[in-house]
Amino acid sequence: MRTFLECIPCFFEQALRAGRLATRDETKIKKILDEVGLMLKDISLDSTPPEIGRLIYQKVHEISGNNDPYKEIKIQNTETALKLYPTLKDKLRQSGDSLMTAIRIAIAGNIIDFGARENFDIESELNDIMTKEFAICDYDSFRTLLSQTGRILYIGDNAGETVFDRILIEQMAKPTTYIVRESPVINDATREDAVRAGIDKVAEIISSGTNAPGAILETCNQDFLRLLSQSGLTISKGQGNYEALSGESYPIFFMLMAKCPRIAEDIGIHLNDIILKGINI
Amino acid sequence: MRTFLECIPCFFEQALRAGRLATRDETKIKKILDEVGLMLKDISLDSTPPEIGRLIYQKVHEISGNNDPYKEIKIQNTETALKLYPTLKDKLRQSGDSLMTAIRIAIAGNIIDFGARENFDIESELNDIMTKEFAICDYDSFRTLLSQTGRILYIGDNAGETVFDRILIEQMAKPTTYIVRESPVINDATREDAVRAGIDKVAEIISSGTNAPGAILETCNQDFLRLLSQSGLTISKGQGNYEALSGESYPIFFMLMAKCPRIAEDIGIHLNDIILKGINI
Repeated sequence: MRTFLECIPCFFEQALRAGRLATRDETKIKKILDEVGLMLKDISLDSTPPEIGRLIYQKVHEISGNNDPYKEIKIQNTETALKLYPTLKDKLRQSGDSLMTAIRIAIAGNIIDFGARENFDIESELNDIMTKEFAICDYDSFRTLLSQTGRILYIGDNAGETVFDRILIEQMAKPTTYIVRESPVINDATREDAVRAGIDKVAEIISSGTNAPGAILETCNQDFLRLLSQSGLTISKGQGNYEALSGESYPIFFMLMAKCPRIAEDIGIHLNDIILKGINI
Repeated sequence: MRTFLECIPCFFEQALRAGRLATRDETKIKKILDEVGLMLKDISLDSTPPEIGRLIYQKVHEISGNNDPYKEIKIQNTETALKLYPTLKDKLRQSGDSLMTAIRIAIAGNIIDFGARENFDIESELNDIMTKEFAICDYDSFRTLLSQTGRILYIGDNAGETVFDRILIEQMAKPTTYIVRESPVINDATREDAVRAGIDKVAEIISSGTNAPGAILETCNQDFLRLLSQSGLTISKGQGNYEALSGESYPIFFMLMAKCPRIAEDIGIHLNDIILKGINI
């Protein structure tokens, strides 16, 4: 997905939020914003938003000296999600279509996203999403490909959401490779965050090699690119991965809630809609 | 009032909103944002927000070639307000304390502010504000000074709000000088907008000389500075004038609704609170 003009004020909001978490020194935060300002003229609207997010978080790291401002938030989100794990498993046992319920749970996990907003209430949103209509639901193709594939490629998004992903992985019950970011960026899951969520018990964890808040292929390693090109079923979680991958030619199922008006517009849905959308399938 | 770090993303939102109104050419709008980005490093947090707003709107004008992007909106807001005029006069006639009601009406007019947000509903907000508690209300001092002064200095804010100001001016029934911006900036009232609202029938209209969205004294003309220093009762409407004048040593009564969290914090009130606050009185 390309960058919209409306993304630009949002980049500054993200830089400010990360800066505030990274340091208490207002001069350094001002310098982060100044540097993002200087960067702007070299940013093409043809880039994807996570490419710019990547540059912003590099600046936050470089100027504040803090390479993981969301560390505490990620740990806290994962702990909150782990506490919900038994409740989520109960929901699954009580449901008629447990695969669909597990997909809904995995999408519900996507609301844990400090990169896009500051306030949230996991439990109430969880209940909303469990009954919400899908704006796009390629469930039949998903189920068919799932029955045919020998291995699932699962591209993770945020820490905390990882616990919800684990439930879907357990439900699908096929060998799975779970993709994490190479290094910390916003609240996205790294290997450490995935292990904290117990993903290592249900999948092989592999880094995509990227330090961007989305799997931008130019920044990914050969291992990930090979897995993606050979994958029988690829799941992509969240907005950042959608922005990075929606223009690629691989078959991919996107699971997300559109929390940004431009992403909703790009998909052709409304704000806060949820989707299970397959491309190139 | 100084500029907060949180004002910075907001500057880009304002530049984008004005840019979108000024031109349909996305390349030009991107250039406006790029230029605001380049400007950022030279902006001190000790400046007031309208000083920066002034630079932004100069860039919008320079790059888009449009020196009045809010022209249609200002005309439309004034027409909407003029339609409300008879209803407002009725409210005044029915009220117990007509001066207080006229002050409330003048503050209600301040919600007509496209510079701070995009959606609003004048009539329903009008009713809310007519009964809302003041967070700060220096009404007694205001009434005393009003009875003593020979002339009122009334610093206007937005077009449309002007019609509501006219009602307060009529109610106060003293010779009044109404201050407008020298040239168009956001939806702020210029002489033309004030005349369209009928202010010329109830007050002398004088330009402050500024092209900023707030009466920053360094950008004002000698006539205005003389009037301000000699004034027995000065009324300042809206957030932009508060930001520009709150640090000055003249006696001023601010009438506004705090639509921005930082302004609310600076005043020591909550978001959406209304005030009649006197300083240096």
